Amino acid sequence: MSTKFPSLNPSQLLLFFTLLSVFLYLPPIINSRTIRTVDSSSHFSDDSSVTYLWPLPSEFTSGNETLLVDPSLSLSLFGNGGNSVIVREAFERYRTIIFKHVGSSKFGTRDLGYDIGKLSVIVHSDDEELQLGVDESYTLLVAKNHALSIVGEVTIEANTVYGALRGLETFSQLCGFDYGTKSVQIYKAPWFIKDKPRFAFRGLLLDTSRHYYPIDIIKQIIESMSYVKLNVLHWHIIDEESFPLEVPAYPKLWKGSYTKWERYTVEDAYEIVNFAKMRGINVMAEIDVPGHGESWGIGYPDLWPSTSCKEPLDVSKNFTFEVLSGILQDMREIFPFELFHLGGDEVNTDCWNNTPHVKQWLKENNMTTKDAYQYFVLRAQEIAISKNWTPVNWLGGGVCPKVVEQGLRCIYSNQGFWYLDHLDVQWEGVYDAEPLEGITDAAEQTRVLGGEVCLWSETADPSNVQQTIWPRAAAAAERLWTSKEAAPRSNTTGGMTLTRLEYFRCLLTRRGVQASPVTNFYARSPPIGPGSCYAQ
Amino acid sequence: MSTKFPSLNPSQLLLFFTLLSVFLYLPPIINSRTIRTVDSSSHFSDDSSVTYLWPLPSEFTSGNETLLVDPSLSLSLFGNGGNSVIVREAFERYRTIIFKHVGSSKFGTRDLGYDIGKLSVIVHSDDEELQLGVDESYTLLVAKNHALSIVGEVTIEANTVYGALRGLETFSQLCGFDYGTKSVQIYKAPWFIKDKPRFAFRGLLLDTSRHYYPIDIIKQIIESMSYVKLNVLHWHIIDEESFPLEVPAYPKLWKGSYTKWERYTVEDAYEIVNFAKMRGINVMAEIDVPGHGESWGIGYPDLWPSTSCKEPLDVSKNFTFEVLSGILQDMREIFPFELFHLGGDEVNTDCWNNTPHVKQWLKENNMTTKDAYQYFVLRAQEIAISKNWTPVNWLGGGVCPKVVEQGLRCIYSNQGFWYLDHLDVQWEGVYDAEPLEGITDAAEQTRVLGGEVCLWSETADPSNVQQTIWPRAAAAAERLWTSKEAAPRSNTTGGMTLTRLEYFRCLLTRRGVQASPVTNFYARSPPIGPGSCYAQ
Repeated sequence: MSTKFPSLNPSQLLLFFTLLSVFLYLPPIINSRTIRTVDSSSHFSDDSSVTYLWPLPSEFTSGNETLLVDPSLSLSLFGNGGNSVIVREAFERYRTIIFKHVGSSKFGTRDLGYDIGKLSVIVHSDDEELQLGVDESYTLLVAKNHALSIVGEVTIEANTVYGALRGLETFSQLCGFDYGTKSVQIYKAPWFIKDKPRFAFRGLLLDTSRHYYPIDIIKQIIESMSYVKLNVLHWHIIDEESFPLEVPAYPKLWKGSYTKWERYTVEDAYEIVNFAKMRGINVMAEIDVPGHGESWGIGYPDLWPSTSCKEPLDVSKNFTFEVLSGILQDMREIFPFELFHLGGDEVNTDCWNNTPHVKQWLKENNMTTKDAYQYFVLRAQEIAISKNWTPVNWLGGGVCPKVVEQGLRCIYSNQGFWYLDHLDVQWEGVYDAEPLEGITDAAEQTRVLGGEVCLWSETADPSNVQQTIWPRAAAAAERLWTSKEAAPRSNTTGGMTLTRLEYFRCLLTRRGVQASPVTNFYARSPPIGPGSCYAQ
Repeated sequence: MSTKFPSLNPSQLLLFFTLLSVFLYLPPIINSRTIRTVDSSSHFSDDSSVTYLWPLPSEFTSGNETLLVDPSLSLSLFGNGGNSVIVREAFERYRTIIFKHVGSSKFGTRDLGYDIGKLSVIVHSDDEELQLGVDESYTLLVAKNHALSIVGEVTIEANTVYGALRGLETFSQLCGFDYGTKSVQIYKAPWFIKDKPRFAFRGLLLDTSRHYYPIDIIKQIIESMSYVKLNVLHWHIIDEESFPLEVPAYPKLWKGSYTKWERYTVEDAYEIVNFAKMRGINVMAEIDVPGHGESWGIGYPDLWPSTSCKEPLDVSKNFTFEVLSGILQDMREIFPFELFHLGGDEVNTDCWNNTPHVKQWLKENNMTTKDAYQYFVLRAQEIAISKNWTPVNWLGGGVCPKVVEQGLRCIYSNQGFWYLDHLDVQWEGVYDAEPLEGITDAAEQTRVLGGEVCLWSETADPSNVQQTIWPRAAAAAERLWTSKEAAPRSNTTGGMTLTRLEYFRCLLTRRGVQASPVTNFYARSPPIGPGSCYAQ
């Protein structure tokens, strides 16, 4: 048997993650806690100089008026995207969030003379395809409706429905319930916000192999991602520990699930993709080959080099690539996102050398194990490309500057600061990590698509996943959304970034998300004692 | 000024909790983990001898048939309670839970020839008042609809809507999604279940003073309580750290909240009560007097003995009792449950002795501080009774046997095992705690109303409350619901109780509840490594 290296032009197909740590120094001076004044009406006094939006819009102006929002706020949708179900459903979700505290009373509500009764959304395009680089920009105008004014009340204008979703999120954060008047108010109006993302790819990796997450939990995570304008769920579906996904072409594969109850049907996966799309979030699936594949062989032992040596997948058999092709074919039906992650990391090739028939194959093909590894990765990429996918692979730490120099594209993930299972990383480290670190050339900078935080699940499961993700993922989300000018390093804002993040963490809890205290040394640890959410 | 002790008959009004620890020995032999067989189709093989219901019904029989449930399952409601919105809404919630995995597919579903297409609920009474001791019994019959059979398919029969809710929960747990056929199945049919609670009061205390819980989080907790048939949320609203609740009669009281955003309006509280009622759960409010009242004085400093000595509430001023009466009057509008908790625990009366005007008052009334404490508690009880409430007070550990002997009623809470913030208590200790410990007389046993687990919030907040509660609260819930015969001590079931609890913990996660691993030494700690939910 003769095997050739696939002849592909790497610049055409390769995307690299930085898997291993990139050195980013921690601020030498630890940011001191904001000291807040106590007034007679409350333990806590909010500072009107702080803009309580997360992530911060790149450009905005505000004023000094307080506007009252009518609980029967209505939506008017205009433009070519005026029939969008995505926008209408989002509006209903945000109505529920904004008016949590009113309208359910047997005690009656007062007629307060509302300033804001209508939300106008203009969507210019009716194209709802959600792909990498989709236009997420929007403008948001919030102003009192003066008789002479042409633009009324609240207006969101966007080129796509996904820009409109981002604007709705921002609007919902401007609305606060005032306990004194029992009404929803917008402070510091009029607002004019012109916003767009700094990076096209703003991701969260979820590892569903080390622990299984039921679909309700995954939906909770996706919902909360939308609150910080993250737009890619990197679904690390399968690893050596378990194979939870149904693959119709190879129906024994999900025998590698932990139990018969810890599985995702094709329909489950499709539902997750659709749920995410309704929130402007893409799902990038990953199957990590050729390492991390032990669980594949429970259903098909031929994928193992041998029953005593189970990883990496057997490079010598055509069957291995047939199965891979079958998986990618079936997954193509589920995942419309153009990127597909093929893993490729942490491959210990000892099994190939130690298994007689694989060793024989290496010899026949005149390959070292390193050659064989490269052959596997390239052949996997070739299969992905043949299914109309752009493959993504893991690479080692600090490679972004090198690969963008070579014309490749890169998604930044920084093991030192953006791996959420590293519990000893504080929010400042997450916040100050910089995807463009070491890249000065403008053309090269454009090849950094963005970045992602990673929730590896060795010690995370449904019981603690949200508090491992939040609030630190929010810190990365602002780095990825907001321009560098509007979101400078954490130690340059006089404590304002911390104040904003503490406020946002409490906003997450008000929305039912189990976000942890911000300033604990170890992430997801309990509060150290009684106290306000806004100071822990 | 002359002050008299109120002359009340204590047996008429007092209920006692055991606040301090009751000694209950841990099983001397640690229950060994169930060893599960591994079959070729899965890492885990379920044991058909195990009944996966939590809490276990007191009486049931099952068979060997597997029935398929139609995803368009319909409800037919009969009896005097046939118009119940409570039952209809519950049915819709359970439909969502049961059919999570089907009906959302673009890939189509198969016509499988369903066995169960209709759920009949018969509710005999149209009285929907939810009070202590409301009839929660039900029968549940699940059988194939044979041509000759009069009773069709699934039938729940109950005297009240609340019994019907309990039956719906049990039915939902009988339904499991089968990943092989992609259908909802009921195993081991036919089922005949005749069930009722062992105790009338099955509670969970939530402390919203040490940390504030947004209403969405409280609703998540209430929803999950219904899954284990708990029926009382003991809302420890106010304590010395913060006073989050609005009291219209004394509008400055909630100035004692941590911040202006950490508050409950009257409407919020009413919504929580209503949300709970829809799930058959009462809300027992608590204001803990005269100790634990420091936060009251932020709005009304006159309630403090002095600004340098702030607890207990000033016993010498009539204003103190006016405020208390105003609170109880306003709360009466919100909380229809007949029980109201007045606290009364942990009172250090030094402030009374050290403050000149209080000391003077004690002297004039010829009272020791102990007399004054008793006077305060009795006067508070008198006010509660005048508002048509049955007052409840905390008492020390191990008092249940003593007070029921005296004709008083008792609600059992065991600091050693049922305080959920005691993280080193394992599930077996929670499970084996026995409310009737030391009480053999049948009449005295009837005076134990039930019990409650307590979530004190010094180190719990929205980020970790659910994993502090679950799964251990489920262990107590089975002790309170299921007859002692059907739920013997944990070390007598050959590991079956642990297997059932592990399964139930995973059921909670499937329903989106952040329930922790069952067998970790410390509660709410993360999983120790990768693995199946069903074995951690």
